[in-house]
Amino acid sequence: MLDKTTEIERWFRMAWNENVPPFYSSVDVRNAGFKLAPVDTNLFPGGFNNLAPEMMPLAIQAAMSAIEKICPEARSMVLVPENHTRNTFYLTNVARLAAILKQTGLDIRLGSVSPEITEPTRFDLPDGQHIVLEPLRRKGNRVGVDGLEPCAVLLNNDLSAGVPPMLQGIKDQILLPPLHAGWATRRKSTHFKAYDSVVESFAEMLDIDPWLINPYFTHRNQLNFQERVGEESLAEAVDEVLAKTRIKYAEYGIDEQPYVVVKADAGTYGMGIMTVKDASEVVGLNRKQRNKMSVVKEGLQVSDVIIQEGVHTFESIEDAVAEPVVYMIDRYVVGGFYRVHTGRARDENLNAPGMHFVPLAFETPCNTPDCGDRPDAAVNRFYAYGVIGRLAALAASQELEATASVELAA
Amino acid sequence: MLDKTTEIERWFRMAWNENVPPFYSSVDVRNAGFKLAPVDTNLFPGGFNNLAPEMMPLAIQAAMSAIEKICPEARSMVLVPENHTRNTFYLTNVARLAAILKQTGLDIRLGSVSPEITEPTRFDLPDGQHIVLEPLRRKGNRVGVDGLEPCAVLLNNDLSAGVPPMLQGIKDQILLPPLHAGWATRRKSTHFKAYDSVVESFAEMLDIDPWLINPYFTHRNQLNFQERVGEESLAEAVDEVLAKTRIKYAEYGIDEQPYVVVKADAGTYGMGIMTVKDASEVVGLNRKQRNKMSVVKEGLQVSDVIIQEGVHTFESIEDAVAEPVVYMIDRYVVGGFYRVHTGRARDENLNAPGMHFVPLAFETPCNTPDCGDRPDAAVNRFYAYGVIGRLAALAASQELEATASVELAA
Repeated sequence: MLDKTTEIERWFRMAWNENVPPFYSSVDVRNAGFKLAPVDTNLFPGGFNNLAPEMMPLAIQAAMSAIEKICPEARSMVLVPENHTRNTFYLTNVARLAAILKQTGLDIRLGSVSPEITEPTRFDLPDGQHIVLEPLRRKGNRVGVDGLEPCAVLLNNDLSAGVPPMLQGIKDQILLPPLHAGWATRRKSTHFKAYDSVVESFAEMLDIDPWLINPYFTHRNQLNFQERVGEESLAEAVDEVLAKTRIKYAEYGIDEQPYVVVKADAGTYGMGIMTVKDASEVVGLNRKQRNKMSVVKEGLQVSDVIIQEGVHTFESIEDAVAEPVVYMIDRYVVGGFYRVHTGRARDENLNAPGMHFVPLAFETPCNTPDCGDRPDAAVNRFYAYGVIGRLAALAASQELEATASVELAA
Repeated sequence: MLDKTTEIERWFRMAWNENVPPFYSSVDVRNAGFKLAPVDTNLFPGGFNNLAPEMMPLAIQAAMSAIEKICPEARSMVLVPENHTRNTFYLTNVARLAAILKQTGLDIRLGSVSPEITEPTRFDLPDGQHIVLEPLRRKGNRVGVDGLEPCAVLLNNDLSAGVPPMLQGIKDQILLPPLHAGWATRRKSTHFKAYDSVVESFAEMLDIDPWLINPYFTHRNQLNFQERVGEESLAEAVDEVLAKTRIKYAEYGIDEQPYVVVKADAGTYGMGIMTVKDASEVVGLNRKQRNKMSVVKEGLQVSDVIIQEGVHTFESIEDAVAEPVVYMIDRYVVGGFYRVHTGRARDENLNAPGMHFVPLAFETPCNTPDCGDRPDAAVNRFYAYGVIGRLAALAASQELEATASVELAA
């Protein structure tokens, strides 16, 4: 990959010519040594505070470029955060994001859709800063905060609980990302289907096996974990993915046990996830397992799942398993960090509920590979992560285009 | 300036909406403490190798954004360097520039207009790298190198000797920057006239005295230093600028001796420059002084001069006088460095012939001011330099627009 950076960058330039990049995104990447692949793409990234301060200039420059294209005349913007106002870690992300946008020349106000926020409310942050959340208000076809209905509203709320009435039927105002990027509409299987097609073209250009950067997956709908509806169908799907993976492991002489990850097809936050090494494990789940699988964030019932080839994490930091997360604004990689967790095996999901990961910021940026250096030197590893992150962002762009009609029909 | 960064960034965003940024530029800035102003704007910047390696990611990202707008489909580009092929320092700049562009997905080839380059010629650089210069060739209405006539040609040659016939009448090909950005057409006085107008609007927005970021100037044409034609007129001009400066010094209680710098109105490389504290100094120049003033780079005769208010350099590094230089690609500040010279007084020109300056790279970028920090903290000083640099780049943009008709008429 490293001796082809010029071709890769040109390929991306052409691709972004035809696809509108998401305003921002973060991609969980897994590095198995023999394979490097995205496992999740977040269109409402919530960890900007984990990026190294040295990456701020890149983030600011990328945001300038994004804003210039979207609403070059804008003076102000409203940012709609998640509702969990007690999570100061998350609020620090909001503060960081606001700081980045402020440096593009925008006054940023925070409009919350949380029922708890009925008047401007100050939240002190651990780092000594503070933010003020104001209630988001509807005014005709637009939303805003007191005295401001901006040209664009930036959502940092993934709409897991559905689209709040206040945000429905907005006109003459740009929502970033669009509502159908929220988990009320989005499906991981649609994303990875788009990723398949992106990777097909990219792998052809590089003349590599697409599998090396793409996990197998399939999906199943209308399951009911509590009622044990669809268990057989799920077992079949697990078998299918495991079988395909085994063939590849044999082809490449990989001496590891294949596994799959069963995840809610919509939703996030590591709930509704299980790691499976054999189809039999998904049949006859006990009550605890069924409970775990059946509900995701905001109490949503899980009926659709994606069954994805598990990618081992071969990276570790001080003996702890590490999973890279790549952050993008517009088409640009602006940094990343490792999720590091000591208590987990390398085939387990690192974004689990209650997981206390340590963010370890990438110390160098993702756009300066050094061909003279070893392929696994940090600077080159980060470049490769950035490539995978951008492929996933490109898939998200195509996914959003494909699902735009869903929003219009709703 | 620091508590208004949001307004400043918004102002720039609006301004770049209406003005096309030069592909790249570098601006010599002088910081007098009481005053911060550009003294020279280079549209063929030649010191990219002086930027800190940490700034490369910003430069790459900015170049990506520029290329995307100019020729998004381009696979290759030809870069036309200066002819002084024995200056390995300059050639290292060319190598760095090529590396930045390569990382945007372009194959870069170097097409020289030097008569010495008649076939592909390898030059080894002090850092162990090498570059290959190929002869630039004309093919119909386009130029290129063997087997390549790219959509865009990047000039890093300031055309001091005039526009080579090979580059005249190019059609269906983009020259970056356009030919009239070369010193064959460009005049410093036209640039600073555009800067006046840029600063007027900027200063009004910030509610500051424009003089604080703008040096007074006037200009005189059709002088002949050798024949002593126009000495009186020049002395008058010097008097005029000194008098205006004295009034401002009195207004602000500045206890310094005003001075002016007389420079060739076209041209670069610190030739044809003198520092004057009294009008009488330009009358009755001795032979040595007349020789110094009458010729600039490539042996060009000086007949037009700009008489510019001198801005003291109050910055010093280890007791040596230091002049900041800000580098931009497209609308983005991508870094900078200090010219440091121990042998000169702080009212002298630092870009003098034979001057051996020490480049001291800015260690932090120019787009992340820290309002909590002191105004003269490095990060805030660099932000202010970046603002001045961008104002000058904006002036260059307007200057190029105003002089475009000159090129068409030629």
